Amino acid sequence: MRNRYKPGADDFLKENDHLIIPNPAKYKGNWKSLFKNNPCIHIEIGTGKGQFLARMAKQYPEINFIGIEVAKNVITTAAQKIIEAEVDNVLLLNVDANHLIDYFTENEINKIYLNFSDPWPKNRHEKRRLTYHTFLKQYEHILDATGELIFKTDNQGLFEYSLISLSKYGVELEEVNLDLHALEDPYNVMTEYEEKFSKKGNRIHRLRAKFV
Amino acid sequence: MRNRYKPGADDFLKENDHLIIPNPAKYKGNWKSLFKNNPCIHIEIGTGKGQFLARMAKQYPEINFIGIEVAKNVITTAAQKIIEAEVDNVLLLNVDANHLIDYFTENEINKIYLNFSDPWPKNRHEKRRLTYHTFLKQYEHILDATGELIFKTDNQGLFEYSLISLSKYGVELEEVNLDLHALEDPYNVMTEYEEKFSKKGNRIHRLRAKFV
Repeated sequence: MRNRYKPGADDFLKENDHLIIPNPAKYKGNWKSLFKNNPCIHIEIGTGKGQFLARMAKQYPEINFIGIEVAKNVITTAAQKIIEAEVDNVLLLNVDANHLIDYFTENEINKIYLNFSDPWPKNRHEKRRLTYHTFLKQYEHILDATGELIFKTDNQGLFEYSLISLSKYGVELEEVNLDLHALEDPYNVMTEYEEKFSKKGNRIHRLRAKFV
Repeated sequence: MRNRYKPGADDFLKENDHLIIPNPAKYKGNWKSLFKNNPCIHIEIGTGKGQFLARMAKQYPEINFIGIEVAKNVITTAAQKIIEAEVDNVLLLNVDANHLIDYFTENEINKIYLNFSDPWPKNRHEKRRLTYHTFLKQYEHILDATGELIFKTDNQGLFEYSLISLSKYGVELEEVNLDLHALEDPYNVMTEYEEKFSKKGNRIHRLRAKFV
């Protein structure tokens, strides 16, 4: 469903190039210049339909957000949500997360969010998981010294894998929550998936980690 | 209940000093001499009533086990289970886990098991949790280069805490399982608590970690 051809996606992207930035490599090291307010930048990798980003941008107007989503037909939905939310602290990139260091320079980012990333459960697809060490290396590079990786999922296998992968990389855990929704957290902003899977009774897991 | 006065516990310990070793400090560096077979030694910290140790000793006759239990009235029950199991590859120590390095020398141990350890949920009792850094330091000291720490619990808070504490110490995770009983594992030996809490529907968590 998500990769179905959506007529007009290309046109939509062109018309909204102030929001979905074409040629993002040219802003490497210079993203702060595209935002009005303070220089704090959080990125979400795999923004999907954009609910998390739109709500976060509204909840934290003093923070700048960049959403990364490779699927063209999905990022248009995210863009529409951002437009409807009437926020001016969000940009979107229609690029692959494999090449983050082409778009961001060292220490440029303050937080990275991974929300309900594809679990790629087959062993032969391990390299595609967003907590595989090649991704961690990119995160470490672009995060500043106090930067954090924040990861939410309901997928038990991916969470277990990620804890192991992070520990082998030497990342330090700041928080682990195996059942995020057991207690009400007024600051937790839910993604579309999170709402859906939580209603089904799945436990939501979250971790926060620092590269030290 | 566990610390209730049990008449005859002292007498029982004296009569079974081949099994519950008095003055264990004098065997520091020399535990292998007390066992008949190969030199591999696994210890369980907080042996409780001994079901895990008795069953492990039966399942792995080529491995030597030492159970550590501070409660005198509980270790007598463990000793009785060991005697009933008719195994000769187990010893018990009625000592506090705070002083492991008084009883074991560097690299003397091959595996350490923590099973359903007291969660000490209050923040002010953090130091008593068996995955607090002072304990990890002892484990690192007595484990050999390929040695592992294996920890099982149904307590969500203690498991979350332990993952954080291990990551801050720099321990490398080899395995994380958030729901051990979801799949049948014929090699998993259950403790008394594990059987009870699993029947109640609690998820059993397990991790295996290496000091690298």
